[in-house]
Amino acid sequence: MSIKQVSFRDVNILDGFWKDRQKLNHDVTIHSVRDRFKDTGRFEAFKFNWEEGKTNKPHFFWDSDVAKWLESVAYIIEKEPDPLLESQVDEVVDLIEKYQEENGYFNIYFTVCEPDKRFSNRDWHELYCAGHLMEAAVAYYNATGKDKFLKCMCKYADLIEKIFKVEDSAAFHTPGHEEIELALVKLYHCTGEKRYLDLSKHFVDKRGCEREVPESHWANDIYYQSEKPCREMTEANGHSVRACYLYAGMADIAREFEDEELKNACKTIFDSIYYKKMYVTAGLGQSYHGEGFTVPYDLQNDVAYTETCASIALVYFASRMQQLELNSKYGDVIERAIYNGILSGVSLDGKSFFYENPLEIMLSEHKRNIFLKNDKERRPITQRLEVFGCSCCPPNITRFIPSIGDYIYGADDETVYVHQFISSDAKINGIDISMKSGYPYNGKISIKAQGGNGKMLAFRIPSYSKNSFTALVNGKNAELTIKNGYAFVKLNSETEISITFDISPKKVFANPLVDRDAGKCAILAGPLVYCAEGKDNGSHLRMFRVPETLDYKFSDNAETGTKALIIKAEKMTASDDLYSFNRTYEETELKIIPYFAFANRGETDMAVWLISK
Amino acid sequence: MSIKQVSFRDVNILDGFWKDRQKLNHDVTIHSVRDRFKDTGRFEAFKFNWEEGKTNKPHFFWDSDVAKWLESVAYIIEKEPDPLLESQVDEVVDLIEKYQEENGYFNIYFTVCEPDKRFSNRDWHELYCAGHLMEAAVAYYNATGKDKFLKCMCKYADLIEKIFKVEDSAAFHTPGHEEIELALVKLYHCTGEKRYLDLSKHFVDKRGCEREVPESHWANDIYYQSEKPCREMTEANGHSVRACYLYAGMADIAREFEDEELKNACKTIFDSIYYKKMYVTAGLGQSYHGEGFTVPYDLQNDVAYTETCASIALVYFASRMQQLELNSKYGDVIERAIYNGILSGVSLDGKSFFYENPLEIMLSEHKRNIFLKNDKERRPITQRLEVFGCSCCPPNITRFIPSIGDYIYGADDETVYVHQFISSDAKINGIDISMKSGYPYNGKISIKAQGGNGKMLAFRIPSYSKNSFTALVNGKNAELTIKNGYAFVKLNSETEISITFDISPKKVFANPLVDRDAGKCAILAGPLVYCAEGKDNGSHLRMFRVPETLDYKFSDNAETGTKALIIKAEKMTASDDLYSFNRTYEETELKIIPYFAFANRGETDMAVWLISK
Repeated sequence: MSIKQVSFRDVNILDGFWKDRQKLNHDVTIHSVRDRFKDTGRFEAFKFNWEEGKTNKPHFFWDSDVAKWLESVAYIIEKEPDPLLESQVDEVVDLIEKYQEENGYFNIYFTVCEPDKRFSNRDWHELYCAGHLMEAAVAYYNATGKDKFLKCMCKYADLIEKIFKVEDSAAFHTPGHEEIELALVKLYHCTGEKRYLDLSKHFVDKRGCEREVPESHWANDIYYQSEKPCREMTEANGHSVRACYLYAGMADIAREFEDEELKNACKTIFDSIYYKKMYVTAGLGQSYHGEGFTVPYDLQNDVAYTETCASIALVYFASRMQQLELNSKYGDVIERAIYNGILSGVSLDGKSFFYENPLEIMLSEHKRNIFLKNDKERRPITQRLEVFGCSCCPPNITRFIPSIGDYIYGADDETVYVHQFISSDAKINGIDISMKSGYPYNGKISIKAQGGNGKMLAFRIPSYSKNSFTALVNGKNAELTIKNGYAFVKLNSETEISITFDISPKKVFANPLVDRDAGKCAILAGPLVYCAEGKDNGSHLRMFRVPETLDYKFSDNAETGTKALIIKAEKMTASDDLYSFNRTYEETELKIIPYFAFANRGETDMAVWLISK
Repeated sequence: MSIKQVSFRDVNILDGFWKDRQKLNHDVTIHSVRDRFKDTGRFEAFKFNWEEGKTNKPHFFWDSDVAKWLESVAYIIEKEPDPLLESQVDEVVDLIEKYQEENGYFNIYFTVCEPDKRFSNRDWHELYCAGHLMEAAVAYYNATGKDKFLKCMCKYADLIEKIFKVEDSAAFHTPGHEEIELALVKLYHCTGEKRYLDLSKHFVDKRGCEREVPESHWANDIYYQSEKPCREMTEANGHSVRACYLYAGMADIAREFEDEELKNACKTIFDSIYYKKMYVTAGLGQSYHGEGFTVPYDLQNDVAYTETCASIALVYFASRMQQLELNSKYGDVIERAIYNGILSGVSLDGKSFFYENPLEIMLSEHKRNIFLKNDKERRPITQRLEVFGCSCCPPNITRFIPSIGDYIYGADDETVYVHQFISSDAKINGIDISMKSGYPYNGKISIKAQGGNGKMLAFRIPSYSKNSFTALVNGKNAELTIKNGYAFVKLNSETEISITFDISPKKVFANPLVDRDAGKCAILAGPLVYCAEGKDNGSHLRMFRVPETLDYKFSDNAETGTKALIIKAEKMTASDDLYSFNRTYEETELKIIPYFAFANRGETDMAVWLISK
């Protein structure tokens, strides 16, 4: 039996860290992304009027950018009505209905630009765009009850079923960029049409079973997660966003069909990430080249690709895994992602975005190819931008933040699960839950449950506090049953659980096989990964060394609006010699800030991993 | 007054480390390079019979490859007659004479392939090839007394003078790849024709004074050391081999013309290398992209370009600097280069070569772009090859080793200088010098001088032994005058100086601004830089940590034929977790070998810089 995810629709985020992020997303980010998408012609494209010679030629993935924006609005207005935003969605939906073809086909690029190339190349993102439109349609129907968009997308799904499953008449069998797999499961849940679930399973079943043509000229099958059938996969591989969208879809199918083989493949793949391929920020995708996973333990910090979308996709995967089996590692990963590798994707003012989220910036090296006009070495950008040519990340952020409530609670018949510690209330299986959380800056959590007498409430014990948390039940020490990293409390008719997690700053070390983190530590305080910036400490952050025992104090960092830490450190004494037989250190302090807040004060050096004695 | 360099022609290398290298060079390397050059058509090209449609189309730098091979033979037979090699040179010289044009022009590519493009593009290496042919001609004349080659090259030099100085009729003013500057000085010394010296000065004077056309489409003027006039330069910049050939030529002109402004520029440029841009192996050129210098303190180890030719060029530069002023840093750099960054360029069996000499190999990362067909990240190769498309390094090695005697001694009217500690004898200013040296594995040096009563002998005190050497003069402690890193001894009619330098292994640390070496140490034993290899220690060498105090023992390393060291080390305990709050170490040993011997036992991890507590 699976642990049901409690939808954000049934959860109200109360005041606190995430409420602030949701407000910023609603007040600023959603509008800013729309404006940039308008500037670049992405909305205009839905009028299907682009012609050769005009600017802003649609790209074959533009449908998906706007689809995620539509989905974002749906999640926002689900909780906070906003007639303006809703009307902006309706405008687009009207255009979708207008320009959808009679047979159900909908894709701007392959109607306006290259209509004769439909479904001819798996790398051209048609099914990916379709998937995002389906997710948006489901979200919008849920939020508003308006079914125009949903009907359009059902019609499109029917066409896809006909072409890919009934007739098998497309030039390829499975999408080069996965996404439709998990979208079809949502469409099934929304409509009750099992055909959509079966079509999703069809794509999962077919993947990697036969050679797809045309073969990519620049990547092999691993890039596309097509090197072997899904059930035989043992390692996260290839383009990391595509990969994790697929793995999320696989986990959906495993759950819906109680498919043990697929479930085991998902577990093995997840573990390959968790034990070998995940940055400490929950960033995924070690290399710009191919935007994807590389070999185990290859975790270079300065050239980390770690796309914002990949961390979001990891949360999709992990949240489905925690429906398949109870294990606190899934919630740990989600927590690490939402406070670090995802949140770093958007600026503190809500207007600009990172596509790549590096874990180190050594600015001096960015100028190393001073005399070349071309053939310069590539490095990740150091300041966020408002829009990208490939702008998948911004609307992925705008849809993720309003739906963060999806990841807080789970439930089965006997138990309510608290996966994340975000101030919120919810009614779950008839039990009224109300949680107050100091996260991420304070480890005090209070959970009140009304009802559910005799049932259980289980809360995740974060890995950093495994051996050092306290929990009072109705003011008293209580017997807790610990299972798979969750603490189980028996509920009375009214139960108040007061938990204190140890979120004190700690040094974290990487596996000995991670060459790039050798001799270094990261500093984590509960859910937050910290980093040092040049703005606070001067450039060349590797001059600093963290002593064996961490000595810290908190400091309000007015500048970034976050809670900074001041730690004792040693700094190598300046020298004229390039090489010397002696090395001396001076005692000093190092100011570190939460990773999600880096690069908000101009271009500067940054390091998550610090030299450690 | 300058300190004259004593030519290798007046120095006999006795038994020991370098005699062995010279024997290998003569027995194996010179023949192997010739065979590979034959295979690739480089010798055949001198018949000027290539036609469109044939294989082995000459490249515009091939003349220089063979020229350096000819020069190599000249240096070998100067000391050890070898009729076969000499006849092989004569064959080429006959062809050069036969195909040289009436006006003196000689270049295979621009005669056979693109005769209408002569002297039209400074980046096409014509003057570079000319320079190498001149160096070879001088060397061959010196070795054999045969003047055919020399006359040809004088004729060519005359043409170059006419075109570049008298008429200024070429499309450019100065060569894109420097080399002819120092070659013309040699031609002047050999022939006594001051016009050649003046022509060299002309190229130095003109460089960077006006914009050269055509402008390079891929690099700016810095790449070509043309961003400003030579006398205004303050930093080593651009393509590192080109740069150091120029700087050597500049130092020649500064010396010959007693040009203080140029001398000061040379000093400043040298210091920019010495204090900011030199790897600990005396490797130069931090980036493959542009094969050149980058910004100060940017010394990445795994992607270090550090071309063998660049370290050789650095010795050319440094050896001219030590003629301009007495300072032990020049000899220190030469020593570091000859035992490390140059010698690593050739395999222990004498047959294969590195173009790039990285300071770290992390093999697992070489496989990181597993799913890409193209667009893979570039890394230096990990095993030496017998020949390259651009094969400048192999014949640079073959000419360097037999002429190593050039760098041992210097002299002015009052003093004989011992710059390097290589077993040898020489007659200098009427004084018979005989040196026995245990270098590089033992720091005992004995220098006997017969004659020179009342004059001085000065020996360099290597930086690693500055405060810890002993010297007995005729068996007694003697007053030594120390000046600029040299110890001065007054000679009797027979003087024996017994020196013991401290070449015990020591930890060396890089400047705090060198990000990539932070938290690490290199281990040097006298002139030798050591490195750890995976073959001895297993892969992932960053798992090891060197304790604060170095604890070592020597161990004969039968496998590589060099002297290995066993050092005490700590190794991180293996773990399943990717990140953990604890880190533990196990005591272990680490075997390290001289850097020059790396990559002689198959592909394996390697590290010069080791994590240091």
